[in-house]
Amino acid sequence: MALILKDGYATRSTTASQTGNGMSGKNILYAQSGGVTPVINATACGVIETAREEDRIGNVLAAKDGILGVLNEELIDTSVMTSAQVAALRHTPGGVFGSCRFKLKSIADSRAEYERLIEVFKAHNIGYFFYNGGGDSADTAYKVSQIGEQLGFPVQCIGIPKTIDNDLPVTDVCPGFPSVAKYIAVSIMEASLDVKSMASSSTKVFILEVMGRHAGWIAAAGGLAARHSGEAPQIILFPETPFDQQAFLRRVDSVVERDGYCSIVVSEGVRDAAGKFLSDSGVKDAFGHAQLGGVAPVIASLIKAELGHKCHWAVSDYLQRSARHIASRVDVEQAYAVGKAAVEFAAAGKTGVMPVIERLSDDPYQWQIAEAELGRLANVEKTVPESFISEDGFHITDDCRRYLQPLIKGEAYPPYGEDGLPQYLAVEHEIVPRKLADWR
Amino acid sequence: MALILKDGYATRSTTASQTGNGMSGKNILYAQSGGVTPVINATACGVIETAREEDRIGNVLAAKDGILGVLNEELIDTSVMTSAQVAALRHTPGGVFGSCRFKLKSIADSRAEYERLIEVFKAHNIGYFFYNGGGDSADTAYKVSQIGEQLGFPVQCIGIPKTIDNDLPVTDVCPGFPSVAKYIAVSIMEASLDVKSMASSSTKVFILEVMGRHAGWIAAAGGLAARHSGEAPQIILFPETPFDQQAFLRRVDSVVERDGYCSIVVSEGVRDAAGKFLSDSGVKDAFGHAQLGGVAPVIASLIKAELGHKCHWAVSDYLQRSARHIASRVDVEQAYAVGKAAVEFAAAGKTGVMPVIERLSDDPYQWQIAEAELGRLANVEKTVPESFISEDGFHITDDCRRYLQPLIKGEAYPPYGEDGLPQYLAVEHEIVPRKLADWR
Repeated sequence: MALILKDGYATRSTTASQTGNGMSGKNILYAQSGGVTPVINATACGVIETAREEDRIGNVLAAKDGILGVLNEELIDTSVMTSAQVAALRHTPGGVFGSCRFKLKSIADSRAEYERLIEVFKAHNIGYFFYNGGGDSADTAYKVSQIGEQLGFPVQCIGIPKTIDNDLPVTDVCPGFPSVAKYIAVSIMEASLDVKSMASSSTKVFILEVMGRHAGWIAAAGGLAARHSGEAPQIILFPETPFDQQAFLRRVDSVVERDGYCSIVVSEGVRDAAGKFLSDSGVKDAFGHAQLGGVAPVIASLIKAELGHKCHWAVSDYLQRSARHIASRVDVEQAYAVGKAAVEFAAAGKTGVMPVIERLSDDPYQWQIAEAELGRLANVEKTVPESFISEDGFHITDDCRRYLQPLIKGEAYPPYGEDGLPQYLAVEHEIVPRKLADWR
Repeated sequence: MALILKDGYATRSTTASQTGNGMSGKNILYAQSGGVTPVINATACGVIETAREEDRIGNVLAAKDGILGVLNEELIDTSVMTSAQVAALRHTPGGVFGSCRFKLKSIADSRAEYERLIEVFKAHNIGYFFYNGGGDSADTAYKVSQIGEQLGFPVQCIGIPKTIDNDLPVTDVCPGFPSVAKYIAVSIMEASLDVKSMASSSTKVFILEVMGRHAGWIAAAGGLAARHSGEAPQIILFPETPFDQQAFLRRVDSVVERDGYCSIVVSEGVRDAAGKFLSDSGVKDAFGHAQLGGVAPVIASLIKAELGHKCHWAVSDYLQRSARHIASRVDVEQAYAVGKAAVEFAAAGKTGVMPVIERLSDDPYQWQIAEAELGRLANVEKTVPESFISEDGFHITDDCRRYLQPLIKGEAYPPYGEDGLPQYLAVEHEIVPRKLADWR
């Protein structure tokens, strides 16, 4: 145990037992929420490294498995992590403290949960709640700031943006998205070279399915691989554009006629004119099980049946959102910066806010951190605007390219070991001793 | 036009019109065959760069779209490529001259094709035929060497190994496989961190489908991500091991119980006890089309139905065999070395042979180029031996790890542009003027 007093504040304690003892600056509680990204741990790195330098702040506790860890009082003590371990967060994908899919409802409907949060905050001397997630998380953080006031235990609530879907309003871009964008652009560029090589005698159509159930940002990123008009991928299918089977088949046919092959990026969220997901096509397998998801095989079967072309298809699924090995350097820097800014906002006494990315110029690409009110971010979904989708609905426009291009700039490779594998952080977490009764 | 005489031999001409004029050393005809790899162009780079230094050899002509380009007399003149373009082959995926799926039958059955090949060789002063492919290509190269003798136009035929499936005998490893192995090992390591992060409240099982219809080498490579026993991926399904549904479900259940999540690598070639591919399960989609391939969704549906776990699945398909961005450095070096060795073999007067990789030691990893007779390579498939698959059939053994580990060592990143994308070679090929009548 080593307490250092500086400027009248105690800095972080060095053992778990000290958390919440009231002798040091108030602690930060950091929680990850929803689907993870290749760079969400870079944000955690920004939070922890900055907090360690900030005298007015105590420990950083990390909720195990997101908000569930707060409710269950499973709090990870990050103060026992070495500097090297914290630094390794910057290049480790997944969510190293765990995340969850669990949405708190309104204060009226979920009052017991909100009260439990405050109880846990009190027990562990939490002065700052950092919720690292998308729109739902911004909403929750906003409500937590309100309930703390009501219950007489004010906590500074800071949202930190994260979502591969890039569907948060206000911020120019969501940390996580640029790395997925880079992965998809590089992958479809590479696979297109493959199918092009073989097309004269074999596969003529390649289809890559990407994430983005409601917003087509990731699909749009595939369009970056087509540096010039007509290059692969020649077709992109967006969730924003209702699927027109006949127009699509005509386009595939004309591209194969022109180029000898056709490369397609399809969003998992593509729907027909009636609003039904193409992936929910009632497929049953031989065991009689309803088949789970996958719009790429549906598109492939359609092309094969209607046009007769041999198709190959890939579904990138979790590969795309964990591919830290091909992360965007811009993304890693922005993910770190929003974590750092959250601590600075906290130290400056702010609450109910989120650090966001503000774009200053496209080329040269310049950006800075700005401050947004959580209330403005909650439950608003930013989809790909009409001006970013070409008139025929099958590609991106130059405006879209101007927006996306800077985001995938630069590489930020993880270190590799002698065994040829990335050296991602593997750490046994130390859970802070519990002080409260079980929750439910 | 610039002819340089050295040691009594004319070196390569500098214009297309000279090919086959008999004034220079005989030309090499280089053809790619079958599915491409992330590094097959590195082999082409080794061939062209070495031939340019070799006084006894004329031009390198490359067949457009593999052997079809020879039959159709579509030959690409590589002598007009700049040194920088040739060097860029080393880091460009796909098959830059095109490849094909077209197998020549026996000499008796396909005599006309063989005779056409010789006719094209004669017309373009071809003294060396390099066929870069798998077992079938070795067989074809072997037959071409026989027919040349019979027809009084002897051509030195050299096979060059290539196949992501790693199923060629004699050679310790096939160029192409180590990069796919690295991609799969890194990808499943990353995706496993993702599913682990979310498992307490969401997806519990992740399934990655990989290539290898008859040989499970690529699936085995996924096992490298499990550096210690019990780590993810916890289950690997090989085509060499008949699928036992009950044993598999019990294993998934016990892994989820133990670790909270389960990560699975499944080969596209997994079959049931009756020898039927699991992917051929008679799936029909809502349009009534037979669904094309995909064993991962079949496994996911099975787990969901029988165990109730939420599953995610990915199919890497062409992504895995074009992912030059995460190539193995060992692979790039070996792919180049076999191309270089082919030219050296040719210059030394050899025929009916293939340069192969011979392993000298595992750790430190040492290898050299050896010479194999084409007849020994043809039509023999090397599958994963029993000693490389754990007794329960669900993972790799230490012996397998010792074999695989060195192959994925080292990174060999392509250069990236200011736009954040790899700078892969894009070149308009120059076709040598035709001298013969159309073929068929």
